[in-house]
Parts: sequence; structure tokens; C-alpha cells
Amino acid sequence: IDASDTASLLRLVEDFHESEMGDLLEALDTDHRPRLIELLGSNFDFAALTEVDDSVREEILEELETATVAEGVRDLESDDAVTILESLDDEDKAEVLDRLPAIERVALQRSLDYPEDSAGRRMQTEFIAVPPFWTVGQTIDFMRETPDLPETFYEIFVIDPAGHLLGAVALDRLLRSKRPITIEQLMDDEPDRVEATENQEEVARMFERYNLVSAAVVDDAGRLVGVMMVDDIVDVLEEEADADIKQLGGVHSDEELSDTVITTQRSRFPWLFANMCTAIIAANVIGAFSESLEHMVALAVLMPVVASMGGNAGTQTMTVAVRALATRELGRSNAWRIIRREALVGLLNGLVFAVIMGTIAGVWFQAFELGVVMGLALITVLLFAALGGIFVPLTLNRLGVDPAVSSGPFVTSITDIVGFFAFLGIATAWFGL
Amino acid sequence: IDASDTASLLRLVEDFHESEMGDLLEALDTDHRPRLIELLGSNFDFAALTEVDDSVREEILEELETATVAEGVRDLESDDAVTILESLDDEDKAEVLDRLPAIERVALQRSLDYPEDSAGRRMQTEFIAVPPFWTVGQTIDFMRETPDLPETFYEIFVIDPAGHLLGAVALDRLLRSKRPITIEQLMDDEPDRVEATENQEEVARMFERYNLVSAAVVDDAGRLVGVMMVDDIVDVLEEEADADIKQLGGVHSDEELSDTVITTQRSRFPWLFANMCTAIIAANVIGAFSESLEHMVALAVLMPVVASMGGNAGTQTMTVAVRALATRELGRSNAWRIIRREALVGLLNGLVFAVIMGTIAGVWFQAFELGVVMGLALITVLLFAALGGIFVPLTLNRLGVDPAVSSGPFVTSITDIVGFFAFLGIATAWFGL
Repeated sequence: IDASDTASLLRLVEDFHESEMGDLLEALDTDHRPRLIELLGSNFDFAALTEVDDSVREEILEELETATVAEGVRDLESDDAVTILESLDDEDKAEVLDRLPAIERVALQRSLDYPEDSAGRRMQTEFIAVPPFWTVGQTIDFMRETPDLPETFYEIFVIDPAGHLLGAVALDRLLRSKRPITIEQLMDDEPDRVEATENQEEVARMFERYNLVSAAVVDDAGRLVGVMMVDDIVDVLEEEADADIKQLGGVHSDEELSDTVITTQRSRFPWLFANMCTAIIAANVIGAFSESLEHMVALAVLMPVVASMGGNAGTQTMTVAVRALATRELGRSNAWRIIRREALVGLLNGLVFAVIMGTIAGVWFQAFELGVVMGLALITVLLFAALGGIFVPLTLNRLGVDPAVSSGPFVTSITDIVGFFAFLGIATAWFGL
Repeated sequence: IDASDTASLLRLVEDFHESEMGDLLEALDTDHRPRLIELLGSNFDFAALTEVDDSVREEILEELETATVAEGVRDLESDDAVTILESLDDEDKAEVLDRLPAIERVALQRSLDYPEDSAGRRMQTEFIAVPPFWTVGQTIDFMRETPDLPETFYEIFVIDPAGHLLGAVALDRLLRSKRPITIEQLMDDEPDRVEATENQEEVARMFERYNLVSAAVVDDAGRLVGVMMVDDIVDVLEEEADADIKQLGGVHSDEELSDTVITTQRSRFPWLFANMCTAIIAANVIGAFSESLEHMVALAVLMPVVASMGGNAGTQTMTVAVRALATRELGRSNAWRIIRREALVGLLNGLVFAVIMGTIAGVWFQAFELGVVMGLALITVLLFAALGGIFVPLTLNRLGVDPAVSSGPFVTSITDIVGFFAFLGIATAWFGL
């Protein structure tokens, strides 16, 4: 790249798939990235930019000329074009749109007007729609003669003159039918459809549930405006799983491996700060028992064991609950059954570990009664951990807060506080400290 | 169901999609499930059984007659049939296979011979394959005249007389070509292909990367044996994300919402036991400083704060590392960059929280020096948390152990031990306790 050797670069990237080109871009130094794109010129497929991390894409686009971007966006499928336009600031976005032909501009503008993360943003606006009175033969001839068809499609749609969706015909169905048959006879008149304003997560769940590869996107009036494709759905499901995993681990869902140290430190700070606050509350609980601790230092040695067991049991229940809420497996119909199950599991594990850890503590400090106190505290904390682990996500979910983001600090503060309070409280009462 | 009123049951479930039927089965009492299937008889679509939890499916299949299962399996696509056969014990499996026509039996047996979680198990063995010298017209006529085609397909494959895969033609490509053109002229001679023995996760990553909807499955000799469909890939990706989320939260990846209390308690026990062991090690570290704790009870109050901050910071780094390893975003090429980034983030957050929490501790206990000790301990533990959070998953991964399953206990035991040791150790040295 430094040598601006376009010819050998071209030879190198000639057979690259867009996702391989994306990997190459990510592996390059920051200032080499726009350089490479400019050197490749019209040989650079802008679809590669949809395969890189958001931050990398924004950086690259900032460096490129608006004219280059407009030229690149023009050749893309509409869903890829929207992804790129989303990454531009408002001024550049307007400028790029201005440079596009009117038809494309209007279609892209309409997609961009739908709310973020909606089906309207993700849909492809290129689709094939025919009237119901056409025959199979007419349809096939139309497709043979039209040069500018979408790159891939799995079904053709049937619309009335006003553009309302009437039905859909799968390609294999079309191929297997005789030429004189009309589309109306062939079409599925209840095609899979989604509203353009629907959230992409809901759409993805629907694809998953009914094993779809594409679905019509309609506007409020039932007019066909685009098509959702399964490859975008695969990305949505991955993004969502990614976000859940990160959020449960206390990491912001936008964090990417390509982020800088400062960005990462800032995005990790809030969770650690929240944890510090709950830890201080828990420390206050311990502080209230300082006299007991002075009299019996064994309590200080054992109390983190109780808190840590509670924290882990709470995390187990919370993980199951948060994931089941995300995949819609947990809802009103089975919430009470799951609450009962978790409470019983917590109680049962509480009893088991009360015996094991109570025995260990009793033997360790040569004090049978300390073992009993330990056991009682463990039963209490594991029961509360189970209840906190399920009620916190359920409550947050009902309040409209994403349980994956905020359940963690609540659950661990409950288990810490209950753990220290139960263990030190029972010990103080039992030994009369 | 209790009234065995088949007629109204039939009316009720008539329009059900297989996944809705699956939901209905899961919502029913255990003994009503096989009852419903028997009542519906040949109107029950066995595909619904692929939509329920594994444990529910096994339970139902145990209750059903082998003849009923054989009849049901016969009507299924091969990938669904394999899912059901997998859930039977060896004896029943052999019996069901015996009742199937020879061609289906051989195909299913071959799928079942591939290792669990391989492409061979998930593939559909129904596909359309034509010789390269056929024309578009011949191919379309063949499809029109053959009644027993796969339910859905997105491409047709091209093979030589020995069954070796030569190429593939997408349906839209076929539709848009004139009848006299030969398949050979049309086909993509480097079609997307996977080995039947390849792990389904690898196949799913490939679909995701190259936005595929189907891919040919070939055996060792390059002969076409089946086709992987994107709807199965969507399920694989979801299962995998599910497993990662659960394992990071300390829950066995096989745990399902429909499990009983005892099954759940048993599957949660090992993780809690592992945590108990590491907590005991950490307690021993505290025990080594009992004298210091007796002299200065403030240390007992503050030490859980240090450990908890370390645990959370370690979990953050670990979550990012485990997920990046699963999605193949983290590999040898960028490991050192990520390690350096995490170490710097840990150090930076350590400095920030040293100032914040050090001040709080100093003011709280009216002891400036205690604040300094707190700060030094936090810097140490957050740095070690970052290093543990990245090195533990990387090491486990290199050893061939799934980092999602086992990183947690390692990382938290490192942060607990380092946390208690650093805080109590620095305090003991500083104050000469």
C-alpha cells in the first residue's frame, strides 16, 4: 500500500469475498484503510464496509471523499447502503444522498426514516412483485428479460395496483408449475409479513420460529415496501446474543475489540462504579457487626465464603431467567412455575451446601456451633439468591428495562447484603456477641 | 383431551404451524402429551417434536408405540427425522429404522453414522442433482414432472456420474436463463461446500460469514451427500449463543426450563462446589492475616470491597475474551494487542478507583493511610483481574477446553486471592501489624 502499487493490490484482492476484504481492512493500520480503498477505486466493493466493526467503519468513512462514498453506495443492495449511510454524520449523509439518482435516494431515505433497529432499516428494497393475473410463463419471461433484478431472491411477491401485498410464490413452486397457470392459483395468500416499524429482534424471533428465509415488509397501509432476508436475520440474532452475553458480564453491548484503551476504560467504568456502591452498602452491613468480628475473627475469615456462594447461585438463576426472557421462553404463562422451581432448587442446594460447608467450617475452627451457624446462613442466602435471581429480571422486564443490562448489580447486592447480614447476624445472636 | 374428543381437537390444531404445536405440547401435562399425539393419529405432524426441548421429546417418544414413531418419521424431511431418531435409545432406534423403506433407512443410517454435532447429522439428504450437460429447459421439465421433490430448495446441484459435486445453480439464476442454455454454462463451479464430518459450529460461522442460505455437504471423496439449510444454521447459532451465555453464568448448557427441580439442582451443584473450593482457598488467605484483622477490624469491613471490584473487572474482561474466541474474532494474530489493551484498561480503571475508593475509605475510617492502602490494593487487583480475565480463557482455549465452561471459577479465584492478599498484605506491612 505504501508503494501505491495498485496492480499487485488488485491481483491480491481480486478473489476476495466482501467479508475477507472486511477482515483485511480491520487488520490494517488506521491510516492505511482509506488509502487502500482509494487505491482500489471502483474495484473496491463497499459491501466490505458492512463487515467491519462500527467504529472502524465510521473512521474509514470520515476519511473518504463524499463522491467516493456516493459512487460506492450506488452499487450496493439497499440494506447494505443503509448500513453505510447510518454511519455517516447528518451533513455527509445528506451530501451522499444528493449525489444518488432520484429513485435510489427516495428508497434509501424512506428506509432511513424508519426507527433504528426496525425491520424498515434492515430490509432490502429491491424485490420482484407481479400482478395476480399474470401466468407462470409471463412471470418467468419477465424475469429473463429484466436485467436489473435483485442479486438474490427466494420468492416473488404478488401485489394489487395500489401496491398492497396479496400473496407470495416461492421460487421452487414457480419452477415446478406449468407455464399457463396463473400466479393467483399458485400463490400463498397468507404470506409471512412484518411491519416496517417492527423491532428487528421480534422479526428475527419470527424467522427462527417459522424457519423462514425471507418475508415481505409492509407499511401501515399493508403496501409492500421491501423484503427481509435471512442473512440479515442471522446477523441480528448474533448481535442480540452478543449484547446479552456482554451485558450479563457487565460490558456495554457496543464495546468492540477494535475500541481504544480509553473508550474501553470509559465503557467499563459505570458497571464497576455501580458495583463499588453496592459493595460499600455490603461493607456497611459488616461494619454494623464490627464488635462481633473483634470477638471472633473466624467470622471475618468465613463471611466471604457465604457471600460468594450466594453471588454465584444468584448469577446462575439470573442467567437462566435473562436468557429465557430474551428468547421469549419465559412469559406470564410459566413465570410462577419457574419461580417455584428456582426457589426449590435454591433451598435444596442450600441444604446440601449447609451440610458440606457447615462440616468443613466446624472441623476447621474446631467449633461445632460455628458449623451450624454457617449452615443456617447458607440456606438463607441460597434461597434469597434464587428469589433475587428470578424476581429482579422479571421485575425489570415488566418495567420495560432490559434485564440483561441491569440485573447483575441488583442481584449481587442482594446476595452480598443478605449473606453478610445472615451470617454475622445469626452468629451474633447464637454466640451472644 | 380427557374426553378423547378427536373431532374438536382436530379443528383446534388444524391451522397450527409445527412450532405452535410444539408450544402446545410443552404447555400440556406430561401424560397428556403422548395422549394428544395418539388422538391426532396421522394428522399429527412429527416435525412439531423437533420444536420442543430435548427432555420433553425424549419423554414423549418413550411413551409412543414404535409403529407410530416409524409412521411419523417417514413423512419428515431427513434432518427432522434424524433429530427424532437421536432422541431414541439404541433398541427403539433400530426398531424404527427397520420399519422404514430401505432407501430412507439407508439415508438416515448414514446421517446417524456421522459424529454428533457434525454437518452430516444436520444436513437434509433430499436434494436435486442434475448432470452438467442438461439444459435449463430439461431441468425445469424434470422438476415439473418429479412429484417427490424436497419441500424447499434454493439451489440445484450438478454432479458427475459417480456423484462428485461439480457445481451449483441458484434457483433465481435458473429462472432467469433461457431454456436451451446448458447447466454447465450456468453453474458456479466453486459452490459453497462443507465436509459431512465438519462441526456444525464451523459450518454456521461459514454461513454467517458468506451470507449463505444453503451449502452442499460432501463426503471424504467429494461426493454430494446432502445439503445444509440456513434454518438449521439459525438454530445452531442460537444453541451456541445459549450455551455460551449459560456457561458463563455457571449453568450447564443442557439445562432447560422444562427440567425438574432435582435435575436442575444436580446440574447447578458442580459449579457451586467449584466456587466453594476456591472460596475456601481465599478464606485461607484471610485466615493467614487473622492477627492483623484482630488489631484493625476496619480491614475486615473493607476487604470484600476489594475482592468484589476485582471479581467484576475480571468478569468483564473474561466475557469479552470468551465471546471473541467463540466468534473467532480473537485469534493468534490479535491476541497480544488485546492482552495489552486489557492490561492498560485494568491499570487505568485501577488508578481511577484507587482515587475514588481510597478517598471514601480514608474519610469513612478517618484514616488517610488506610485510604492509601486501599488504593494500592485496588490498582493491584484490577491489573491482575484484567490479566486473569484474558489469559485464563486464552490458555484454556489453547488446551482445547471450552473457555466458556471453565474460565469463571479460575478468574474469580485469582481475583479473590489476589484481592485479599494484596489488601491485607499491604495493610499488614504498612501498619506493621
